[in-house]
Amino acid sequence: MPAIAGIGTLEQAGSREIAFLANPQYASQLATTKAGAVILSPRAAEQFGVDAAPGFARVVCAHPYLLYARIAQWFAERLTPEASTLVHPSAVVAESATLAQGVVVGPQAVVGEGVKLARGVRVGAGCVIGDHCEIGPDTLLHARVTLYHGVRIGARGVLHAGVVIGADGFGFAPDAMAAQRGVRGQWVKIPQLGGVRIGDDVEIGANTTIDRGALDDTVIGHGVKLDNQIMIGHNVQIGEHTAMAGCVGVAGSTRIGARCIIGGASMISGHLTLADDVVVSGGTVVAMNLDKPGQYTAIYPLLEHGEWQRNAAVVPQLSKLRRRVQALERSLAAASPATPSAAD
Amino acid sequence: MPAIAGIGTLEQAGSREIAFLANPQYASQLATTKAGAVILSPRAAEQFGVDAAPGFARVVCAHPYLLYARIAQWFAERLTPEASTLVHPSAVVAESATLAQGVVVGPQAVVGEGVKLARGVRVGAGCVIGDHCEIGPDTLLHARVTLYHGVRIGARGVLHAGVVIGADGFGFAPDAMAAQRGVRGQWVKIPQLGGVRIGDDVEIGANTTIDRGALDDTVIGHGVKLDNQIMIGHNVQIGEHTAMAGCVGVAGSTRIGARCIIGGASMISGHLTLADDVVVSGGTVVAMNLDKPGQYTAIYPLLEHGEWQRNAAVVPQLSKLRRRVQALERSLAAASPATPSAAD
Amino acid sequence: MPAIAGIGTLEQAGSREIAFLANPQYASQLATTKAGAVILSPRAAEQFGVDAAPGFARVVCAHPYLLYARIAQWFAERLTPEASTLVHPSAVVAESATLAQGVVVGPQAVVGEGVKLARGVRVGAGCVIGDHCEIGPDTLLHARVTLYHGVRIGARGVLHAGVVIGADGFGFAPDAMAAQRGVRGQWVKIPQLGGVRIGDDVEIGANTTIDRGALDDTVIGHGVKLDNQIMIGHNVQIGEHTAMAGCVGVAGSTRIGARCIIGGASMISGHLTLADDVVVSGGTVVAMNLDKPGQYTAIYPLLEHGEWQRNAAVVPQLSKLRRRVQALERSLAAASPATPSAAD
Repeated sequence: MPAIAGIGTLEQAGSREIAFLANPQYASQLATTKAGAVILSPRAAEQFGVDAAPGFARVVCAHPYLLYARIAQWFAERLTPEASTLVHPSAVVAESATLAQGVVVGPQAVVGEGVKLARGVRVGAGCVIGDHCEIGPDTLLHARVTLYHGVRIGARGVLHAGVVIGADGFGFAPDAMAAQRGVRGQWVKIPQLGGVRIGDDVEIGANTTIDRGALDDTVIGHGVKLDNQIMIGHNVQIGEHTAMAGCVGVAGSTRIGARCIIGGASMISGHLTLADDVVVSGGTVVAMNLDKPGQYTAIYPLLEHGEWQRNAAVVPQLSKLRRRVQALERSLAAASPATPSAAD
Repeated sequence: MPAIAGIGTLEQAGSREIAFLANPQYASQLATTKAGAVILSPRAAEQFGVDAAPGFARVVCAHPYLLYARIAQWFAERLTPEASTLVHPSAVVAESATLAQGVVVGPQAVVGEGVKLARGVRVGAGCVIGDHCEIGPDTLLHARVTLYHGVRIGARGVLHAGVVIGADGFGFAPDAMAAQRGVRGQWVKIPQLGGVRIGDDVEIGANTTIDRGALDDTVIGHGVKLDNQIMIGHNVQIGEHTAMAGCVGVAGSTRIGARCIIGGASMISGHLTLADDVVVSGGTVVAMNLDKPGQYTAIYPLLEHGEWQRNAAVVPQLSKLRRRVQALERSLAAASPATPSAAD
Repeated sequence: MPAIAGIGTLEQAGSREIAFLANPQYASQLATTKAGAVILSPRAAEQFGVDAAPGFARVVCAHPYLLYARIAQWFAERLTPEASTLVHPSAVVAESATLAQGVVVGPQAVVGEGVKLARGVRVGAGCVIGDHCEIGPDTLLHARVTLYHGVRIGARGVLHAGVVIGADGFGFAPDAMAAQRGVRGQWVKIPQLGGVRIGDDVEIGANTTIDRGALDDTVIGHGVKLDNQIMIGHNVQIGEHTAMAGCVGVAGSTRIGARCIIGGASMISGHLTLADDVVVSGGTVVAMNLDKPGQYTAIYPLLEHGEWQRNAAVVPQLSKLRRRVQALERSLAAASPATPSAAD
């Protein structure tokens, strides 16, 4: 058997690649895969059978998905080009900025006054780092990330293209005095004087935005993983290792616990508290505190359009429908007093 | 008592900071705050009592939240660094562009042909201003804002990083002639020849996009406030002082009135009309005209997942359930004709 | 009649402009339009009548909307300024990049190692093209588009500002070994080693993101049209000529067929399959396979807020309400066995 030169799926891997089986749904692909080696659990290895004499080497392991992640990291490191320069000549770096050893600043990037970049920080092409930001060791900013002034980010973070951190939170007071003069509806901006603090090992997906606090800081805990196009409002606090899928929105001042999992396109209202270990299903609107761990859901069931129309027409009459059932129960009880009622 | 040097929350402010009480929910913090001064309403001042002999100066005011906004603006101005240069040497500014007094163009920015920037306009690092745009006095573009050609913006606006204004609206005609040749599904692009006009005192949040019109313009009224990651389709019109929270989408040609408040992640279909003073709850899909002021809501109630499953299973049967209730009412009326019916 | 110098709406066009009537809703504007010419269908021309002696020339055509698209394209081309330079001096282009004839690279753009740009490719101001990307003939990248390394795009594409293609998919394995040491909730990043392949004639709206695959590629078919702020997860496959309105999210590994139409703000879960010619209504969460063509919907009906509260309160009791109706049916059947039941 040849040496392993890469990693692939069971379906696509060739004889010089290693594949993995983590999801039992794909077990049937073991019979046809052309992979040179396959990572699989002791149970899967047993089920597949010794007699099968597979064309691949079996790598039996208690946590196949985790081993796959580690091996993929090993290959990914080999794919990362060596940094050939430190600061690209087209970048604009303030004289008062401090760049530690091994820092790389890409073309067309801007690094503001008083910025501190720890060892190994990589700033991608076209990034804008506002004044007095601080970034911890080995954090990677891909192209075109924007940090407003005073943002602090920990070690080993990954920020993807289009991320914006530290823009003003959405704070406006109704102009009650203008209203007294007859000018209705005007808003007065509340300057956002707080900052953003982001822990270690945080990954932030493309075009995600995290606003700065109004007075105190917006705080993202260690190990938090945010997918693309997420919107985190001002003064939100997110606990350690919480993960959010794409398109989630969290309104201002909400506190989310540790180890939560928030499904894609969920929307969480402001000034709420979510406990540790809460799971929110994708597409769910959360408009109340969630004090206990567990999974919560609010999805309107999908139907063929005509069926949806017929059933959705009843929703605005549900309260009346319930009253009609109550009336029926009362009538029936009056008509035949011996009949037990199902209502409780 | 020392002079006031900053502003903070009741919870965090120290003896040299001023805090405020606008939300009665936080009244209990008056007993423990370390703030040097507190802004509060006459009623709150009265309830707190004269005998309490607080450690803070009371600033009694009819509109505490508004006064807080004004004081925060005062402090924010002091935090804004003086512009040290006009046009950064790394910026690319077309010779035909007109820059009035006090205009600042940041590093790596691009200003196109025929652009007119009024006095006091600040263009952040990495912005791209398309040809023939016009921006009114004292408008601030934070880093990495993109304006396509011909966008017009009023005075005192604030545009946050990642904003894109004037991209093509989503307009395609089915290619009926290709379909006749047997090629199904092809789309023909409809060039978007209109523009975008934005009034005075408009704030636009990070990564929000506003498309240009197909033939006429997309129009955003004076004083409109848009949060992050909002999507405004082509030919939308938004009335004065309307505010939208994050992640809202408005499809093409919809007209939204003045002083509306649109909650986060609401989605408004195309070709609709919303009256002045309409409030839409967060997470609501609006697919019909709203002709009267008032609050409108469409949120599926959140439940623990198992409970959600049990109840959601009934939704596709609501029409049948209503018919079953009707049948029961008819049966009961036939069985005991004297019984009054609750159905109306 | 003067020559036609432009195109406009029936409402706004003047005597030197051509307008069109595609939507019968606007037929009444024929009586008042000041347009010099109007494109309309044979039926509309007939209904409008010969006697009407309109002030405009009638352009009778089987597909008025399509003809409008073609004419608008003709005018749009005349509005596009000639490219005056090839590579702007402020752009940073790697020596190993290959630029074919007629390629234009805008100011402050970055083009990486080994990139191949075919003839007529235009790269807007501030774009970042990662190493080894390949872009087909006549594709247009507006300002500030980001392509990560190795992205392949076909011919005649249009990518709008803020687009990010090829960022890491959202892949993390729970760190089961850390958990055994008592550290709960940690995630291990799964490097995203796949790429992104985009077909010909694809348009991608402002701030839309398309992630690279984990091992295999993310694939967007020919003729696909994506609106603004769409999020396409890793390893998604989208069939030819499918169109998606703004704010749609598609989670990882989902396969969407050809000629589908996905309404705005719809959210499609991961690992699903949608057939060809599926239509999903705006605001719909899709959490199951859709095997047949047709329209599917899941929208909670909008109500005035008080009415919504009353009816939404019944949703968490629907399962119980159904049981009460069953109990009533049983009671009534027992009381009057001859009565036919409506339940089936």
